[in-house]
Amino acid sequence: MAEAVALIGCKGPAQESEYRQILAAAMPEERLVPFRVMDAGERAAARVAIVANPDPAEVAALPGLVWVQSLWAGVEKLVGAFDRPLPIVRLVDREMARTMAEAVLAWTYYLQRDMPAYARQQSERVWRSHAYRKPVDVTIGLLGLGALGSEAAARLLDAGFPVIGWSRSPKAVARVETYHGADGLPAMLGRCDILVCLVPLTTETRGLVNAARLAALKPGAALINFARGPIVVTGDLIAALDGGRLAHAVLDVFDVEPLPADSALWSHPGVTVLPHVSGPTDMASAAATVAANLRSYRKTGAPPQGVDAARGY
Amino acid sequence: MAEAVALIGCKGPAQESEYRQILAAAMPEERLVPFRVMDAGERAAARVAIVANPDPAEVAALPGLVWVQSLWAGVEKLVGAFDRPLPIVRLVDREMARTMAEAVLAWTYYLQRDMPAYARQQSERVWRSHAYRKPVDVTIGLLGLGALGSEAAARLLDAGFPVIGWSRSPKAVARVETYHGADGLPAMLGRCDILVCLVPLTTETRGLVNAARLAALKPGAALINFARGPIVVTGDLIAALDGGRLAHAVLDVFDVEPLPADSALWSHPGVTVLPHVSGPTDMASAAATVAANLRSYRKTGAPPQGVDAARGY
Repeated sequence: MAEAVALIGCKGPAQESEYRQILAAAMPEERLVPFRVMDAGERAAARVAIVANPDPAEVAALPGLVWVQSLWAGVEKLVGAFDRPLPIVRLVDREMARTMAEAVLAWTYYLQRDMPAYARQQSERVWRSHAYRKPVDVTIGLLGLGALGSEAAARLLDAGFPVIGWSRSPKAVARVETYHGADGLPAMLGRCDILVCLVPLTTETRGLVNAARLAALKPGAALINFARGPIVVTGDLIAALDGGRLAHAVLDVFDVEPLPADSALWSHPGVTVLPHVSGPTDMASAAATVAANLRSYRKTGAPPQGVDAARGY
Repeated sequence: MAEAVALIGCKGPAQESEYRQILAAAMPEERLVPFRVMDAGERAAARVAIVANPDPAEVAALPGLVWVQSLWAGVEKLVGAFDRPLPIVRLVDREMARTMAEAVLAWTYYLQRDMPAYARQQSERVWRSHAYRKPVDVTIGLLGLGALGSEAAARLLDAGFPVIGWSRSPKAVARVETYHGADGLPAMLGRCDILVCLVPLTTETRGLVNAARLAALKPGAALINFARGPIVVTGDLIAALDGGRLAHAVLDVFDVEPLPADSALWSHPGVTVLPHVSGPTDMASAAATVAANLRSYRKTGAPPQGVDAARGY
């Protein structure tokens, strides 16, 4: 029997079945088998795994793996998780960048147009208008200027918002005033009306948005976290909201997901909780990208470029 | 003493003072006096009134008026309200069209991105994602293709939403499939995922969105009313929401404003209530438009083009 490609992760049987079907249609020449139903021979023979938020132990249980293709853009649970070098290939997908940039614009409007305040007023039957803020008067700061950050910048700029941005190393993005490195961060934060997190989770970005960084924001600023939960220190965030320094936070990602029922974030009036929906993977688009990666590997024997283990992305 | 321009209406003394200051800065050659402090001589001499949602009786109390400049785009309370022909000039302002089009896009995202459902889930501590709908799969139908509708269409199209539109008489708008007249309405409604009201209130549009029109929408469609309350029949709207035909309504305008505290709309789970904030007048921009109208009148003696009393806009 031909070597099978392992499918690891997915949210449950329904998602696994859906993903398997769409991937199979995009690469009919491959045999795709969920890890949990692979026999010992198939596990030993597998050279490639396609994964969606997998248990790293399952990936480690395939000793012959040459590389791992993630269906997610964030791969922080996999980078450096194995006792041998194993290329981890992130999903870099145009459709995901478009979807995420759209989410950034949608929830930027949510904040600029005071939708949280109007929802609160509706629950109290209060009719009161808040002063309209033009986009030109609302500066958006992007933490992260990769594929997602650049696309978000373009959408925000087209909508009339001034955009500034920060990245680890120097980057040039059209019409965006950029800052970089630890020294550049406070200057960027001090200009933000809305701070948007789009950085990957690495040892450097874990806890990046802490009390000091939140205190550096303009008074009354808001936060959008569409990256990964641990980039923001939850206790510091709640303190900044309670102290009035921060006006509102839109959170799509959390330290633990699903967000535990006893989390204080659920009922905080300054927090909008979303169930990790800002940039859903478009499987039709992702499957085409993954199929192209696999075909290139079958032809050349060389795995696609994995993430840089030292940088973490 | 030189003839004074009357200022009538405004939400209260604070807004009156703010508007007066901004208007005075734009037309230092004019003397602007609030109607309520004008003496009998000034009332008799006034030829021009600048109004913001005025009591029509105050306008009627200026017997020498030649024309009325509204600071609002909607002038339904003034058209045909006087016992003599009196030109009513609507505010046609680029900045208002931009602001309103932005509101249409912002609340379209609100619906497309399921923000009402996620807010409800947050209040119940429920973590559940809804299937993402791409803009290309969400058709927006515009009721009204004037200055506001055309600008909204352009913004929605740039964001990837298919746009169709309806107007009283035939109109061509770039990239928009248009319908017109009573015969064209059902066909347009049957294709709408989100119906957006941007028509002026006239005898023809009063009650336009009634039970029959709501039933003609695609099942599960949503409604945005940014025009005037009486265009939508409130009882029919609530019945369509309760019957599950309509998924959600975003209402910025109402039969009576402020919305009375005992209205059923405040607490309806399928309704988002906004306090008439979708297209706020930008006074700096409006004052420049009004100053240009007044200067033209002083020079030529001819009032600017008023609304067509028969059409009502």
